[in-house]
Amino acid sequence: MTDGGQLSGGTTPAGPGSWSSWSADDLEDAQIDLSDFHAVVPAGGAGTRLWPLSRSDRPKFLLDLTGRGRTLLQQTWDRLLPLADADRLLVVTGRSHADAVAAQLPDLPQANILREPARRDSAAAIGLAAAVLVRRNPDAVLGSFAADHNISGRDDFESSVEEAVVTARRGFVVTIGIAPSHPATGFGYIRLGKRLRLQGAPNARRVVQFKEKPDARTASAYLSTGDYRWNGGMFVTRADVLLELLATHAPALHTGLQRIADAWETPQREAVLEEQWSALPAIAIDHAVAEPAAEEGRVAVVPATFGWDDVGDFSSLAELLPADVDQPKVLGDADLVITEGVAGGLVVPGNGRVVALLGVDDLVVVDTPDALMVTTRARAQEVKKLVERALEAGLDVV
Amino acid sequence: MTDGGQLSGGTTPAGPGSWSSWSADDLEDAQIDLSDFHAVVPAGGAGTRLWPLSRSDRPKFLLDLTGRGRTLLQQTWDRLLPLADADRLLVVTGRSHADAVAAQLPDLPQANILREPARRDSAAAIGLAAAVLVRRNPDAVLGSFAADHNISGRDDFESSVEEAVVTARRGFVVTIGIAPSHPATGFGYIRLGKRLRLQGAPNARRVVQFKEKPDARTASAYLSTGDYRWNGGMFVTRADVLLELLATHAPALHTGLQRIADAWETPQREAVLEEQWSALPAIAIDHAVAEPAAEEGRVAVVPATFGWDDVGDFSSLAELLPADVDQPKVLGDADLVITEGVAGGLVVPGNGRVVALLGVDDLVVVDTPDALMVTTRARAQEVKKLVERALEAGLDVV
Repeated sequence: MTDGGQLSGGTTPAGPGSWSSWSADDLEDAQIDLSDFHAVVPAGGAGTRLWPLSRSDRPKFLLDLTGRGRTLLQQTWDRLLPLADADRLLVVTGRSHADAVAAQLPDLPQANILREPARRDSAAAIGLAAAVLVRRNPDAVLGSFAADHNISGRDDFESSVEEAVVTARRGFVVTIGIAPSHPATGFGYIRLGKRLRLQGAPNARRVVQFKEKPDARTASAYLSTGDYRWNGGMFVTRADVLLELLATHAPALHTGLQRIADAWETPQREAVLEEQWSALPAIAIDHAVAEPAAEEGRVAVVPATFGWDDVGDFSSLAELLPADVDQPKVLGDADLVITEGVAGGLVVPGNGRVVALLGVDDLVVVDTPDALMVTTRARAQEVKKLVERALEAGLDVV
Repeated sequence: MTDGGQLSGGTTPAGPGSWSSWSADDLEDAQIDLSDFHAVVPAGGAGTRLWPLSRSDRPKFLLDLTGRGRTLLQQTWDRLLPLADADRLLVVTGRSHADAVAAQLPDLPQANILREPARRDSAAAIGLAAAVLVRRNPDAVLGSFAADHNISGRDDFESSVEEAVVTARRGFVVTIGIAPSHPATGFGYIRLGKRLRLQGAPNARRVVQFKEKPDARTASAYLSTGDYRWNGGMFVTRADVLLELLATHAPALHTGLQRIADAWETPQREAVLEEQWSALPAIAIDHAVAEPAAEEGRVAVVPATFGWDDVGDFSSLAELLPADVDQPKVLGDADLVITEGVAGGLVVPGNGRVVALLGVDDLVVVDTPDALMVTTRARAQEVKKLVERALEAGLDVV
C-alpha cells in the first residue's frame, strides 16, 4: 500500500491520525498528544423547527432524534471522549437545563457544567469557557462543538479535530469546513484559501472569507467552484487567542467575561454572574471573533471528510433514519404506524397511539402527548411559524 | 299569492303540508292525519370510513358529527318526532348498542327498541319492525329512515314523508328520491316514471327501475337526463304490504320473521329470536322488496326537496361543517387548531390536544385518544382500508 510515497510497514490498523505509519512503534510515537485539548459543548437553542418534539424545557440536544438510544448531547459526548477525557470536556448550558445535562452525562464532572443565567448567544458561552479554561491551563486549546448536530464517520471526525488542534497551537482560529452536499441556503459558507502546509495538519488551509447564508443562485455558484465549505460552527483555537480576539473585537464582552472568570472558583461566582451576565452583549462567535480574525488572515480551516448534519428540521431528521423503500421513516415504535398508499415522509409516534396514514406522500406527522403537528417535508423548515402561532394563541405547548 | 289558481285567504303561516291553504280553518281540516304512521330507524353499520371517530362499539349513528350537540341518531329522532310521536317510533339495533340508543333517546319507550342478536342486513331489521308493528296496528304505515344520515330542510322533509304516507296507503312501496347534486358513483339511482296524480301527494311518481351504483360515465348520463334520483334508502309502505312482498320474494326471511313476531310480546321472545335470527338470510331491503316490487309496478317515488347527505366519509362530513374561507373545517374545539399556510381540509381535535398544521391543503386529520388518522379529502373514501390494516396488525383500535 503506497500513500504519498511512504510504505506502510506493518499490519497494525491505522491509528487515530490520517497520515501514514511506518511500524507499530513509529505509530505510537506519531500519535498526537491531545492533553492540552479541551472540548467545549455549548448546549443551547430551542430547536423550534423540531416542535412539538423539542420544547423550551426539552430542547433538541436532550432528545434521541436518531433512534439509537442516545440523545444528540450524549452522542456528542461519545464522539468527543476519545479526544478529550471527561475532565477536559465542558458543557455550557442554561441553568434550567443543567440538571438534565448532568443526568444524561453522569461521568461529566459537575465543575465542568457551566451554567448560564440566561441565553447570551455563542460568543458569551464559548468565551466564558475560554476564560475559565485559561485559568485552569494557560496553554489550553479549546474546541467548540454544538450539542445537537449529527456526525457520521467517527475516525474522520477525530483526525479532523487533531489537525485542527495542531493548527490551533500555531495561533490560528481553526474551523472545520463541511463538504457541501447540495446548494444549501440555510448555512454560512467558508471560502478556502491556500494550504498552510503545516507539519501534522496536511489538510489545513487558510480561510479567505466567511460568507453569510447565500441565496440559492449564489449557493449553486459556491458549490460548482469547489472552493467553499459549509460553516458547521466547529471552532478550535487556543483559549488565550480567543480571549485576545474578544478583547480586540468585543471588548465589553471580554471585560464582563474576565470578571466572571476571576470569580468563578470563588464563593462570589454566582453574585458576579448575576451582576455581569445580563449586561453581556449577545453576539454570535462567528461575528465576534471568526469574521474579524479572518480579515486579519488568522483563521484556518480543516476540510472535513466526515458526514455532518445539523438536524435542523424534520426533513433533515428524516434523512438520518432508516426505512423500507417507499415507506415513511419512523422515529419510535414502527408497530404503531399503519400506512396505505403512502410514500416517503416521517412519522413520530411519540405518544403510544396508533398513527394511520392513507394516501399521503412526504408528510411529516409528529405525535406527542399534548400536541400533534402535521406538515410536509418541503415545508418542514417553517415549523417555527407554528410555534409562534401557538404562543400567540396562548397555548401551553411550547 | 297565487298557487295553482288558488288564493290564499289568510296570513296564517303555511301548515306542515306543501299544498296551498284557504284559511286557518280549512288549513286545520287539510292537515294530514298521520296517526297510522310509524317511523322505523335501523341503527346499524360500523361506519368504517369514518374511523377512528367511529368504532365497532361507538358507531357513526351514536356520534355528533355535525357539531350541533346532537348525535346523528338524536337528529334523526328530532326530525321524525313531528311525524310520529315517541310511541310510534321504533329503533332496530344490535344488542351491544341498545343501551347507548336508550341513553341517547330517553323518551323512546323501551318496548320500541328492537334488539337484533346479530347483524342480518336491512331486510331482516325492517321486516322485523313490520312484523311487530302489524300486530300492534294492522293498518300501520311504516317509514324506514337511516339513523346516520344528515338532512337539511325539516319542513321539506316532513312534506315529502307526508306525501309518501298518502301514497303508501294506496298500497305502494314508496321511496323518497334525492335530487342528485353531482354524478355520484357511491349511491344507487331511481329512474322516475309518470306522475301518479294522487290526491294529497301531488309529487308522487311511479318508479320505472332501481339502478345499482353506476360508473362515472353512467352517473353523468343519469344526471343530464333529469329523470334520476339518488336512492337514499328511505322507504314508506304499509307494514302488511311489506310483509306480503317479503312472503313472495324472500319467503324464508318472511317465515322466520313471523315466528319471531308471534313470540315478540310473550316470554318466549328471546328463545325464539335465538333460534330463528341466525338462520335469517342477510339481504338488503332494496334487493328483497323494492326491486322486485318495482318490476311489478308497485313502487312509487316522492322526489325530495330537502338536502340529504349520507355522511359517508370525512370529505362528505367536511361539507356539512361551517368554516372560515380557506381554513380547514373543524369538528370540535377550534381553539385547539393552529394553522399556517393551510387551505381546506378537515381537523377533528378529538383528544383535547393541540393540532398544528403547516402547509398542507385538503388534509383530513382525525385525532382520538388511542388513534390518529391522516389522509386527504380525495382519498377519504378509502379509510376503511386502514381499518383492515389495523385488524391485520392486531391493533386494538377498531
